[in-house]
Amino acid sequence: MAAKLFDLELSGNCYKVRLLSSLLGIPIEIVPVDFLSGDHKKPPVIDLNPFGELPVFQDGDVVLRDSQAILVYIARKWGGETWLPSDAAGLARVVEWLMVAENEIARGPNDARLHDKFGYKLDVELARSKSARILGLMEAHLAQHPWLALDRPTIADIACMPYVALGHEGGVFLDRYPSVRNWIERVKSLPGFIVMPAI
Amino acid sequence: MAAKLFDLELSGNCYKVRLLSSLLGIPIEIVPVDFLSGDHKKPPVIDLNPFGELPVFQDGDVVLRDSQAILVYIARKWGGETWLPSDAAGLARVVEWLMVAENEIARGPNDARLHDKFGYKLDVELARSKSARILGLMEAHLAQHPWLALDRPTIADIACMPYVALGHEGGVFLDRYPSVRNWIERVKSLPGFIVMPAI
Repeated sequence: MAAKLFDLELSGNCYKVRLLSSLLGIPIEIVPVDFLSGDHKKPPVIDLNPFGELPVFQDGDVVLRDSQAILVYIARKWGGETWLPSDAAGLARVVEWLMVAENEIARGPNDARLHDKFGYKLDVELARSKSARILGLMEAHLAQHPWLALDRPTIADIACMPYVALGHEGGVFLDRYPSVRNWIERVKSLPGFIVMPAI
Repeated sequence: MAAKLFDLELSGNCYKVRLLSSLLGIPIEIVPVDFLSGDHKKPPVIDLNPFGELPVFQDGDVVLRDSQAILVYIARKWGGETWLPSDAAGLARVVEWLMVAENEIARGPNDARLHDKFGYKLDVELARSKSARILGLMEAHLAQHPWLALDRPTIADIACMPYVALGHEGGVFLDRYPSVRNWIERVKSLPGFIVMPAI
């Protein structure tokens, strides 16, 4: 039986899971959740994820929350060493950038988009300032390296790309970050790449 | 040659690294960094970590930033399967909680402490509200499970404990969270446990 993704089409975090599944050729069952009706905060979804957030991933008796953790699961179960190596240095280098996705990118371009596109009440100037900081750091890094964590694409790139590429929906533009733009294009060129609205 | 930790004694993130090293019996060289003088934003530390943050960990030619990523490295290199399993489900369950340390706990009790103890200008009411949410979720989880991720202590517990236990320095108290308090005591009872100021 295929694994299930409890999904919201416009969520970059859900898109990460759809994208990695497509890149690996893993069939998953998409279960759309009516976010506007708050179905992610009601049974059966809240019983699977008490945090009341999407995505939620269910593979047999394994139920996972948090997009970065779900990428780790998919990569380890179906991706061999390619997308998530198991040696200490390689694994830690990927995790460094998973943390950037969870922290700097979430509180930067993701928050700016939540404000502008979905009306969330949050400090959008702070989100734009955090966006400029992390985009500057990513630009410097990507000017020297083709991919974020290793010399090949990993789940670090899949975790970080969506909300950077969606930044324009939150007033976060990439004009000054040519290496970041080129990296996004490299991700888009991967065999099996799929789109989401606005990417 | 022992690995080096560029360290700030009052940082819960640096403490996590010292704590896991002690639990595993790994000798590390502590290199104190003068945070108040901004030495973390100057060479040589900024050359090792362009993010300008502590901790930074150096083991031979491996240099890592982010406390969660450093825990992953130490656990994988020196901890066998015990502190960070390598199977897909076990690894992902630990990563779920590493993300809670990086996100909900960092923006909750850690931010509240940065405001109260170190004078950071941030929205402390938001930090306290986020603290109440994550402590409620942790209380419900820990009422059913002795440890966060698996049926034994893992780096999930080491990553999440410090800023929860330091919450009182940011006006985040644990009176209403008995299972969280008991879990902190269990961590404190681990062989090789070491303290930091206020824990």
